[in-house]
Amino acid sequence: MGIQTHRIATFTAEAGHVFRDVPVAYATWGHLNAARDNCIVVCHALTGDAEAATWWNGLVGPGGALDPQRYFVVCMGVPGSPYGTLSPLTPDPATGQPYGAIFPVLTIRDTVKLHRLLLDALGVRAVALAIGGSMGGMHALEWGFERPFVRAIAPIAVGGQHSAWCIGWSEAQRQAIYADARWKGGAYAPGEGPEAGLAAARMMAMVSYRSREAFGQRHGRATMPGSSVFSVESYLRYQGQKLVARFDALCYVRLTQQMDTHDVARGRGTYEDVLGGLDVPALVVGIDTDVLYPPEEQRELAALLGRGTYAEITSPWGHDAFLIEFDQLNRLLVPWMAQQVPAGDGVAVGS
Amino acid sequence: MGIQTHRIATFTAEAGHVFRDVPVAYATWGHLNAARDNCIVVCHALTGDAEAATWWNGLVGPGGALDPQRYFVVCMGVPGSPYGTLSPLTPDPATGQPYGAIFPVLTIRDTVKLHRLLLDALGVRAVALAIGGSMGGMHALEWGFERPFVRAIAPIAVGGQHSAWCIGWSEAQRQAIYADARWKGGAYAPGEGPEAGLAAARMMAMVSYRSREAFGQRHGRATMPGSSVFSVESYLRYQGQKLVARFDALCYVRLTQQMDTHDVARGRGTYEDVLGGLDVPALVVGIDTDVLYPPEEQRELAALLGRGTYAEITSPWGHDAFLIEFDQLNRLLVPWMAQQVPAGDGVAVGS
Repeated sequence: MGIQTHRIATFTAEAGHVFRDVPVAYATWGHLNAARDNCIVVCHALTGDAEAATWWNGLVGPGGALDPQRYFVVCMGVPGSPYGTLSPLTPDPATGQPYGAIFPVLTIRDTVKLHRLLLDALGVRAVALAIGGSMGGMHALEWGFERPFVRAIAPIAVGGQHSAWCIGWSEAQRQAIYADARWKGGAYAPGEGPEAGLAAARMMAMVSYRSREAFGQRHGRATMPGSSVFSVESYLRYQGQKLVARFDALCYVRLTQQMDTHDVARGRGTYEDVLGGLDVPALVVGIDTDVLYPPEEQRELAALLGRGTYAEITSPWGHDAFLIEFDQLNRLLVPWMAQQVPAGDGVAVGS
Repeated sequence: MGIQTHRIATFTAEAGHVFRDVPVAYATWGHLNAARDNCIVVCHALTGDAEAATWWNGLVGPGGALDPQRYFVVCMGVPGSPYGTLSPLTPDPATGQPYGAIFPVLTIRDTVKLHRLLLDALGVRAVALAIGGSMGGMHALEWGFERPFVRAIAPIAVGGQHSAWCIGWSEAQRQAIYADARWKGGAYAPGEGPEAGLAAARMMAMVSYRSREAFGQRHGRATMPGSSVFSVESYLRYQGQKLVARFDALCYVRLTQQMDTHDVARGRGTYEDVLGGLDVPALVVGIDTDVLYPPEEQRELAALLGRGTYAEITSPWGHDAFLIEFDQLNRLLVPWMAQQVPAGDGVAVGS
């Protein structure tokens, strides 16, 4: 199937910025049923893309809970990310040049609003389930406020607000990027970005995505052959370089800032009232070893949600478990979806 | 009293480097008794200094467990740190210029070996207790291997080996420093160091030193007056600048590398055998919210030590609790010291 791009004529962001001729990269699996209500929206994480069947191959596909034989699965690129959706890398129609440093901070709600326009264009009448982990979990939760268009949500490894703790992690990473002289306030030329700073930020992030136990099991105090470099250092350096080869520093900054805007209560009332009034079934999944979004955050979220159910993944992998523990995710999702996700019936299989 | 400096004629590091005319900054409180065995060695943490009565003012002083009325308290600057002890900032006698980038990675054992020379020069015949938290806890634990000269130890918020998890945190911080073009492999001129990189590293470290709960209580999602900058971002930036004003980037790199060498088992046998054979009373203190050195690490350490006792601080402050929770530390230390630390008797009070 691969990535397609849809262009939206005009998009106005929450803070007032108006964008014209806005690209949204997306991928789909399966087909809309006659009622056009069997859509599942899969929301990707910080450095992810619309290729959900790749990074969530245990979930999106035959045998996975998000089965294209039953559902019309859609994954859309988040604005700010460098894989074809509106971002600092997108040419500004007014100038023909990439937006670059003037690209504003967008919000989690902006992403949902933009993606809603694409779903409308695709003819979707209802979303049976919006699901995602980490940043994708923020979007999944925010999709809940599009009820009754959205009928169920499954936010994974995330809370209802980005915590001071997580903002702190993000800001320290951004500062590593800013510390690289090639950052230039984001106004660097293509290919001349702050690669060393972005690599350091990614290394910091990789620490936060795993756990002490996982690092201990995988690396311990082993050193590289013939070297005093620790295995864990070598691993992190490699991860840093890998991200530099596939990502953009300004996109990374703007996306982490988008995550920092995450707050379901902003402008809607008290946190408790807003969640309590969200009348949509929600499976909230926590990970027992998650350092960034510890399970107590998801337990609280599930308890406050009007129709929340809490479930937990047991894993040594920390936050990253939502990208690894497919068997557990399927085992949690399938029975809950059988009860709560309405699109199982009346689906025209195939096309 | 203030800081004094002792010079050691020759010091050979574990890896073979020979240093001459080596300064060691130190401070003392109280007086040696007639038996010269009432010494308490206080070991400072990564960015600390010998002024223990300042940063541990709830412990070192009248009413604190480390009472100068009873003990001869000594705190010595760790080699590599920028406060007067041998470090990259020290002039190399061979050239008259600071060692700079050629300053090697020293080990936790090097520090203990160097400090032992100073204690000998001060006339200390036995150390009643070696105590410290974090990096200071590594030194305190390593002092245990100087038994019978050392008679008791109290390592706080640390394990018997620097874990892959902690090495990962340190390496990500170092990479933020390296990402600053002013780093120049450590060969920067005085006053022209990688300040932005060091600030980013410190911000990352400050996240690790606290906890999600502490950040939530103190900052939540509050923003600065008239600004979209989150309170926690402002706090971290301030902490970064504060460290830049008082520390050196190369010292920071070398000290974190010294911490990464921490492994009581290196060259001594299996981890279990080495700790089991360490015949010295040890109070091992953990902090319930410590992200870097979680309490299970201290529980394991205490269980493996031949004469280990585990005690835990309950605190929202995370790893930093060892610099904050003085009441709890005193309550844990006083009864254990009454039983295990032999210098209470026969002390000539005053001089």
